[in-house]
Amino acid sequence: MAAADFNELPAHVWPRNARREEDGVVTIAGVPLPEIAEQYGTPVFVVDEDDFRSRCQDMARAFGGPQHVHYASKAFLTRAVARWVDEEGLSLDVASHNELQIALLADFPAERITAHGNNKGSEFLRACVVAGVGHVVLDSDAELRELNAIAAAEGRTQQVMIRVKPGIEAHTHEAIATSHEDQKFGFSLASGSAFRAAAAAVDASNLDLVGLHCHVGSQVFDATGFTMAADRVLGLYSTIHRELGVELAELDLGGGYGIAYTEDEQPLDVDEVAHDLLTAVAKTAAELGIEAPAVLVEPGRAIAGPGTVTVYEVGTVKDVTIDDGVTRRYLSVDGGMSDNIRPALYGSLYDARVVNRDTEAEGIPSRLVGAHCESGDILVRDARYPSDIGEGDLIAVAATGAYAYAMSSRYNAFGRPAVVAVRAGKSRLMLRRETIADILALEP
Amino acid sequence: MAAADFNELPAHVWPRNARREEDGVVTIAGVPLPEIAEQYGTPVFVVDEDDFRSRCQDMARAFGGPQHVHYASKAFLTRAVARWVDEEGLSLDVASHNELQIALLADFPAERITAHGNNKGSEFLRACVVAGVGHVVLDSDAELRELNAIAAAEGRTQQVMIRVKPGIEAHTHEAIATSHEDQKFGFSLASGSAFRAAAAAVDASNLDLVGLHCHVGSQVFDATGFTMAADRVLGLYSTIHRELGVELAELDLGGGYGIAYTEDEQPLDVDEVAHDLLTAVAKTAAELGIEAPAVLVEPGRAIAGPGTVTVYEVGTVKDVTIDDGVTRRYLSVDGGMSDNIRPALYGSLYDARVVNRDTEAEGIPSRLVGAHCESGDILVRDARYPSDIGEGDLIAVAATGAYAYAMSSRYNAFGRPAVVAVRAGKSRLMLRRETIADILALEP
Repeated sequence: MAAADFNELPAHVWPRNARREEDGVVTIAGVPLPEIAEQYGTPVFVVDEDDFRSRCQDMARAFGGPQHVHYASKAFLTRAVARWVDEEGLSLDVASHNELQIALLADFPAERITAHGNNKGSEFLRACVVAGVGHVVLDSDAELRELNAIAAAEGRTQQVMIRVKPGIEAHTHEAIATSHEDQKFGFSLASGSAFRAAAAAVDASNLDLVGLHCHVGSQVFDATGFTMAADRVLGLYSTIHRELGVELAELDLGGGYGIAYTEDEQPLDVDEVAHDLLTAVAKTAAELGIEAPAVLVEPGRAIAGPGTVTVYEVGTVKDVTIDDGVTRRYLSVDGGMSDNIRPALYGSLYDARVVNRDTEAEGIPSRLVGAHCESGDILVRDARYPSDIGEGDLIAVAATGAYAYAMSSRYNAFGRPAVVAVRAGKSRLMLRRETIADILALEP
Repeated sequence: MAAADFNELPAHVWPRNARREEDGVVTIAGVPLPEIAEQYGTPVFVVDEDDFRSRCQDMARAFGGPQHVHYASKAFLTRAVARWVDEEGLSLDVASHNELQIALLADFPAERITAHGNNKGSEFLRACVVAGVGHVVLDSDAELRELNAIAAAEGRTQQVMIRVKPGIEAHTHEAIATSHEDQKFGFSLASGSAFRAAAAAVDASNLDLVGLHCHVGSQVFDATGFTMAADRVLGLYSTIHRELGVELAELDLGGGYGIAYTEDEQPLDVDEVAHDLLTAVAKTAAELGIEAPAVLVEPGRAIAGPGTVTVYEVGTVKDVTIDDGVTRRYLSVDGGMSDNIRPALYGSLYDARVVNRDTEAEGIPSRLVGAHCESGDILVRDARYPSDIGEGDLIAVAATGAYAYAMSSRYNAFGRPAVVAVRAGKSRLMLRRETIADILALEP
């Protein structure tokens, strides 16, 4: 890698409004990251609001309307995020009672909310019915019976989908592959339990079955897995039509749209996958002699992930002699596994750059590590970084908008970082930094 | 496994005061777990205070006095925990400014505190000097210079240790093996940088070098790794004595004392390892012609881990046909990877038992999973559990006192569980359950 490359911000990895300015400083939406570090402290998550919104719009266009696209709250949710999603016209997935409450407190329209979960519990199910959420995705026989009873008691009819395991496993990390049989979610297509659940939903007094749901995995990069799953699930639409006389209007193919975390990766091409998928669904439906259902998708990472970076300040710089006399430089920053567990949890790779200045220095073998009392606290394991990085430099890790803050901890009594949105040259706080007072507040 | 075995609570895995009573209910320190679930809700961490204290006492006795044993805050820290450690006379390790503050707010005596970290930062270092902490363990040349400058500015002399990499790697999970060369912590013994740091500390105007520190790993089960490390580090004591004319009074061999998470495992035998280690240090020191330094150890997990269980309520029960027609039962509980990331992060195994009743049912292949929207949200991957477990049963996972709450997240907007201490038939809250109000409090 030529020295100057360290100054580039790969456009497919970094926020759409990230630029390295002529003075070498990186701005997002016109706001210099050193200014944000100065104002809000480090580590700090910086969210490019227009990037987030533009990805909502891309998805909406590709899938024939914003209501077909469900933003997955679990990737990153605040009331502000729920309002962005609402303003862009998208639907919203929630997977816990608290996620539902946050959405409702942000005045997100209940009819565009879909509720997920393998173990929702009575309280969450009742809240869904009372709020009038658009869909509850049923995940077990007991839940189906309980939801029907709750809806009956409340004098409502609840629209539902059935979560189906189509037996397709997209190529991905094991922990996030979700369509094979041996998992906690869904009803088996192959065993017939998905059909029996659909029949039970059709029979239930206070449930209205509107479609089936499946999910093939996470960080998926082409349409193949989705199309194979759709083909199998559409077979069940045909059976349901034939056996139960019900035509299901919607087909929810879940999330899993991959993003690029590193320069070498290419994100899933949303337009191409949407085109392939919608074409395949139309074709299969026609072959089966059924109406093609509307296709719903549930991206979280692909909307929230690429528009956010985490800015850290460099502290300790240490050269370590490893095998064969090679030296590796350890760059320690002021965050780590508490604000981003993904490298430790999934072996995830990240792109990191110096953002307070440019550099012409040569690259040397480097490792970016956190400040936690654990040797596995590694943000970027194997990298070449410019040799002139020193204490006080700012390093930003890109594509941290999904599953970083959402899975953050207070390990070593670190407070969570602040989260700051930037747009049109201005910054504003989305989540304030946690202090020791927040930690102690839980003690009686 | 015979059916009745499901009712046993393996004594080497469960809290010392856990019992299954004649009515089948499990109590800890005389408090029935169903009562705790009723009063505080689930999931809930239940801490056997006398177990914690008794392990402090065991360690103190084995290592020749409580002041030689440093409880590692990172395993689990509240002000109440700091007070227990203080009352038992142990010393305390902190690895962040916030951990130090929590300890000081609990009136933990500063002179029994040791400060750790690869990237402590000026604020933490200054706080250590101002508070008068017993030891700061130096981790880089820059930190040595900075601490000396801070101590000089404050008109103090700070006692310090040097963290040394002896090049011993105890057999353990990679992420928690901490003595090999290629890591962020410490100064290399082999390269001479540890000796140079010791010389610099001896020369520094406001530092007082009192010993060296090393850490060979986590979940270590015998004295071999510790003894090998001690041998190598004592060689440096001899060199320092000869070359610098300084006799170091203390040798800190770090933590890593393994505990049993499952029935098949055996915890490290504290008395045996302490005996082997102290004997080896005395022998090596004699051979080298130096005074044997006092041996300090830093257990966290071995003190906090075994005395705590997490109690969950069972929700969805689902049978899934896996390979060759075998059925696996998925038992979903109301917590998961947010309150215990260790199975996902390290592949950790756990022992789980029904605690609201006994059972004579036969065992069937089972998996204990959480309620998060992620298929990798697994608490116990491969187990046999009694076939009569149903919705509303309480299951407790044992040995969750270390690194579970400490690394807990709010994934899926789950609030953290409550933590309850039990002693002599009474329960009291240590940390209240987080609510949605705590989550929203961070929004401006």
